[in-house]
Amino acid sequence: MIKIAPSILSANFARLLDDVQRVEKAGADYLHLDVMDGHFVPNITIGPLVVAALRPHTHLTFDVHLMIEDPDRYIDAFVEAGADLITVHAEACPHLHRTLTHIRDKGARCGVALNPATPPEVLEYLPGLFDLVLVMTVNPGFGGQAFIPQTLVKIEKIRKMIDDAGLDVEIQVDGGINTSTAPLVVRAGATVLVAGSAIFSAPDPAVAIRDIRQASENISENIRR
Amino acid sequence: MIKIAPSILSANFARLLDDVQRVEKAGADYLHLDVMDGHFVPNITIGPLVVAALRPHTHLTFDVHLMIEDPDRYIDAFVEAGADLITVHAEACPHLHRTLTHIRDKGARCGVALNPATPPEVLEYLPGLFDLVLVMTVNPGFGGQAFIPQTLVKIEKIRKMIDDAGLDVEIQVDGGINTSTAPLVVRAGATVLVAGSAIFSAPDPAVAIRDIRQASENISENIRR
Amino acid sequence: MIKIAPSILSANFARLLDDVQRVEKAGADYLHLDVMDGHFVPNITIGPLVVAALRPHTHLTFDVHLMIEDPDRYIDAFVEAGADLITVHAEACPHLHRTLTHIRDKGARCGVALNPATPPEVLEYLPGLFDLVLVMTVNPGFGGQAFIPQTLVKIEKIRKMIDDAGLDVEIQVDGGINTSTAPLVVRAGATVLVAGSAIFSAPDPAVAIRDIRQASENISENIRR
Amino acid sequence: MIKIAPSILSANFARLLDDVQRVEKAGADYLHLDVMDGHFVPNITIGPLVVAALRPHTHLTFDVHLMIEDPDRYIDAFVEAGADLITVHAEACPHLHRTLTHIRDKGARCGVALNPATPPEVLEYLPGLFDLVLVMTVNPGFGGQAFIPQTLVKIEKIRKMIDDAGLDVEIQVDGGINTSTAPLVVRAGATVLVAGSAIFSAPDPAVAIRDIRQASENISENIRR
Amino acid sequence: MIKIAPSILSANFARLLDDVQRVEKAGADYLHLDVMDGHFVPNITIGPLVVAALRPHTHLTFDVHLMIEDPDRYIDAFVEAGADLITVHAEACPHLHRTLTHIRDKGARCGVALNPATPPEVLEYLPGLFDLVLVMTVNPGFGGQAFIPQTLVKIEKIRKMIDDAGLDVEIQVDGGINTSTAPLVVRAGATVLVAGSAIFSAPDPAVAIRDIRQASENISENIRR
Amino acid sequence: MIKIAPSILSANFARLLDDVQRVEKAGADYLHLDVMDGHFVPNITIGPLVVAALRPHTHLTFDVHLMIEDPDRYIDAFVEAGADLITVHAEACPHLHRTLTHIRDKGARCGVALNPATPPEVLEYLPGLFDLVLVMTVNPGFGGQAFIPQTLVKIEKIRKMIDDAGLDVEIQVDGGINTSTAPLVVRAGATVLVAGSAIFSAPDPAVAIRDIRQASENISENIRR
Repeated sequence: MIKIAPSILSANFARLLDDVQRVEKAGADYLHLDVMDGHFVPNITIGPLVVAALRPHTHLTFDVHLMIEDPDRYIDAFVEAGADLITVHAEACPHLHRTLTHIRDKGARCGVALNPATPPEVLEYLPGLFDLVLVMTVNPGFGGQAFIPQTLVKIEKIRKMIDDAGLDVEIQVDGGINTSTAPLVVRAGATVLVAGSAIFSAPDPAVAIRDIRQASENISENIRR
Repeated sequence: MIKIAPSILSANFARLLDDVQRVEKAGADYLHLDVMDGHFVPNITIGPLVVAALRPHTHLTFDVHLMIEDPDRYIDAFVEAGADLITVHAEACPHLHRTLTHIRDKGARCGVALNPATPPEVLEYLPGLFDLVLVMTVNPGFGGQAFIPQTLVKIEKIRKMIDDAGLDVEIQVDGGINTSTAPLVVRAGATVLVAGSAIFSAPDPAVAIRDIRQASENISENIRR
Repeated sequence: MIKIAPSILSANFARLLDDVQRVEKAGADYLHLDVMDGHFVPNITIGPLVVAALRPHTHLTFDVHLMIEDPDRYIDAFVEAGADLITVHAEACPHLHRTLTHIRDKGARCGVALNPATPPEVLEYLPGLFDLVLVMTVNPGFGGQAFIPQTLVKIEKIRKMIDDAGLDVEIQVDGGINTSTAPLVVRAGATVLVAGSAIFSAPDPAVAIRDIRQASENISENIRR
Repeated sequence: MIKIAPSILSANFARLLDDVQRVEKAGADYLHLDVMDGHFVPNITIGPLVVAALRPHTHLTFDVHLMIEDPDRYIDAFVEAGADLITVHAEACPHLHRTLTHIRDKGARCGVALNPATPPEVLEYLPGLFDLVLVMTVNPGFGGQAFIPQTLVKIEKIRKMIDDAGLDVEIQVDGGINTSTAPLVVRAGATVLVAGSAIFSAPDPAVAIRDIRQASENISENIRR
Repeated sequence: MIKIAPSILSANFARLLDDVQRVEKAGADYLHLDVMDGHFVPNITIGPLVVAALRPHTHLTFDVHLMIEDPDRYIDAFVEAGADLITVHAEACPHLHRTLTHIRDKGARCGVALNPATPPEVLEYLPGLFDLVLVMTVNPGFGGQAFIPQTLVKIEKIRKMIDDAGLDVEIQVDGGINTSTAPLVVRAGATVLVAGSAIFSAPDPAVAIRDIRQASENISENIRR
Repeated sequence: MIKIAPSILSANFARLLDDVQRVEKAGADYLHLDVMDGHFVPNITIGPLVVAALRPHTHLTFDVHLMIEDPDRYIDAFVEAGADLITVHAEACPHLHRTLTHIRDKGARCGVALNPATPPEVLEYLPGLFDLVLVMTVNPGFGGQAFIPQTLVKIEKIRKMIDDAGLDVEIQVDGGINTSTAPLVVRAGATVLVAGSAIFSAPDPAVAIRDIRQASENISENIRR
């Protein structure tokens, strides 16, 4: 039930495919691709060329997280590069409905990311129009930051919004996720866990993924009962 | 005399280090790292994390070409990531003297890039303040474009400016460089040749580099005589 | 009760006054003037000169919809050109209270437009400070788009906000309005219907206006009973 | 209980320290320093140099109100200049959590300012992360404007949010505060009153501060009873 | 030899086609379409919809003058709307070579406009890459301004640049052109005269065009002899 | 002949008028007021309120140096505050002719500032349209920086441009001016010397001004002979 999405932000960019194939074999579900433009966030990471280079060599779902200003300009390029799912930030999209529709029109699934301070009410008039909500559990820009506990209430609120509306929407979390925080976010309602350093800095990524998954699924089962 | 600077824009980002080490063995002098932010140019490529990942594994001079708005914000990050030389665009720097001084203060060499339409007079009041001029021979943003012949006159003019002033400054060209165009730009005065697809798309990069170098150095010797 | 506001976005700009006078005779209440700057929305349309050219020749209320960034800079020009009502986008106004006050100070009525994804809570601390709410029922930028049904809930919510506060505020809708959608938005609470292609592309605008009005007013009467 | 924060916007910039020392002797609690960059608001006022010049000469708490775009760039400079408390505008901070954390990390207290139209829900996922909320009771940019009564409901709502959460957070108001409006905002829940012209344009600032304080504290005591 | 280009900035936007057809019959060569976005210049005028509405009804060459930021975004729309020639401002184009190439690739002729203070050296590395230079003889933004005499030297310099290079490029002037100033600019080297109020505010546009043309051609003939 | 313009950047902002009156008595000619907006340069300093506060108390010519983006927006405010001369940066003014005309239309004299890297050719088509050229001899933003010797050639070139054209234009220098550098810039052609720390950090400003003036005028006399 719980999906694990290793973030390439903590991978080795010198041998990216090796790391990607390693997490694929280790049982990852999504590959979380962190795109930063140095304007929306204070870092520059990767763009469509890197996504396209990896695409032929893995079956992982490409989950592209656009931390960029005015993302509409780059949606086509990322879909052509092989993105399966494109997530944009509500704070960067004054025309959020248009942006989400644009992503689906190009054939990809779409998500909305919310910064730690952003209330979930920005999603209220978009029922059925997105496939995933990404609740940032750190401030976007860098790997290796500590989980912000105030985000748990927001995850719970979004879980309730989605369940009340009977929608089929994933709740993703990104930032500070490890075996300690995974149970917390899953209990609050998250279904897709992005993890960077917890997976790529581990001696064995397969063990790291398994540990996060187990901790999460115990909780998940308890919730279902 | 002539230096060859393979551009990672045409490398395989899935196995970047392999490609980098291949061109290092093949006799490349610089590694040209194309940084784009999706604002100054219509593409996003790579940032400091990619530079830092390659740094421990190669002795190539890291020649970082910042195609970004307001580059002052990212100079420190690229120097820390391992840049030896940082080149900024004159069109992106209203305070060009400050930006160049900032790069040198951080311990790197500095260059000024000029778009195809930009006149070289922007360099006139900066004698001794930069180590390299990058004459763009295509519009920055993408690999694989055709050489713009109108840039040759500009290379000649800059060569004359530099020689008249007795400065020790390299003239780099970037865009559409191959065995046909290399002699033209070297005859005009270029000393560092960036080449992307001509090297990385060749069956054997070592042969491609050697061919470009030979074509260039014949010219270069003729000029010296 | 229901007002019809033909949008010049679907008029013939070669003979604008003819079309405007045609809809005036056909019983239109407002003339909806769509101003786009190519920055807030991806289209450029018309500015103050076009508004001023029409002003002496019609008695229609000029309902100017500013789809522009930083609208404060152009409010004076549009009032001088003859605007009776100026509507600004909440997403474009970090100082929304100032902008609305500015419009009224210049002698025009003021409105607030909300993009499809924008929640109506942005209106909550402005009671008595605006005359109209424009609920966008498509994404602003182009004529001829399909109505977004998720906006109906928002219209209902704003209707309730206004009625609960006992305010005299019009609710306008813009996008995909025709005889099929007009009853839906009127039932939800809209009182001013912008229509573009449904009026100007019809064989007879007078018939088109009458049909939309009739469909709307049947609903409207049912609500009142 | 009620704190008075004279705003330097109404002080005499020719002899700033005289005015500051006068209000310090007159019993002021905070010195409210209005920083405007001409971009977030339509005025330019003062920067770090002015703050640093005053710092050695007074024991007043320096309450720096940043009415600037992208305030993260200047937080360090204002802390070094002597700010005790730095307040940023929610409308200027897409990464509000990061900005607030940045201020605390530098050793200052932090506040969030809300424009008259901005709903307080932007504070909802930041419990424990700020020390003060500044409810703007005029549009920021100029001194001497009239109090906007629609803001009282927002003050009440924030008071309730804070009390319900058991937080130790000050509620500051800024704009049109005098002996008539002070009781209104204190009754609604404000605890720190910024006043500019009411204090500096008074014949005797000490009397003005005492009058505002008395009017406020009567109310405050009534509330407590 | 001399071409007359009436500017729609001074036409009647209520009956635009009437005015356009009137100047067509009166012997105009080009129709100068002034596009302003309210960002590059302090006015908003018209966009692609107005151009497209006129296109089927006249054989005049559509000479579209883009006074907008980042014009690359709108080139396709104006070509599709019927532009024959698109002129962009050097001051708005950090990638001027790309922008001009883009216009030609879409099938239109291209021009470069220079503000009164902009030196013509920005054209120096673009030989053969543009079809027209527009020397602004007033500051762009509004009709009815007075001719700036300091621009004559610039026209002469550009005339010399073009003749020396043996290029087939038109020199257009825009601003304050009438029977008094036309001889001056033609003597300096201009070949295409934009005129707004001098034509549209004249009792008879045909007479106005004939007068400007005659005054110009006398000069022009004298130059040729 | 040589004018001395103490820069308030190095004055004591706590007792600004004291410092201003001290330099007035010490024989200063102009008061150089450094306005920074935190966008064009990386510092925020002062705005119209500070200028207006000083105006009634001194007869010094107020020489306002706008280091801000889009200065047209603030020209009126600074003229109303008491500016006698307003200088704008060529790098910040795509419509430089309009901006200079705007300043003169409001009744002030106007100047053009050039960053260290900016060539003087930007002045070439503006003869008679400005009263002063400000050659920055450091990068604008902070006091106390070291003089950049490469600027001397530019001063000479501008001196020649002005003399050849027979214009009555002052050449001002700003940055690192003291008794050592003053002779250099005066020999190159400067007539107005801005000095900050050299005057305000001196034990006696009157002595500092006299020393700079004497060093300069010796040179100046030698030139005249």
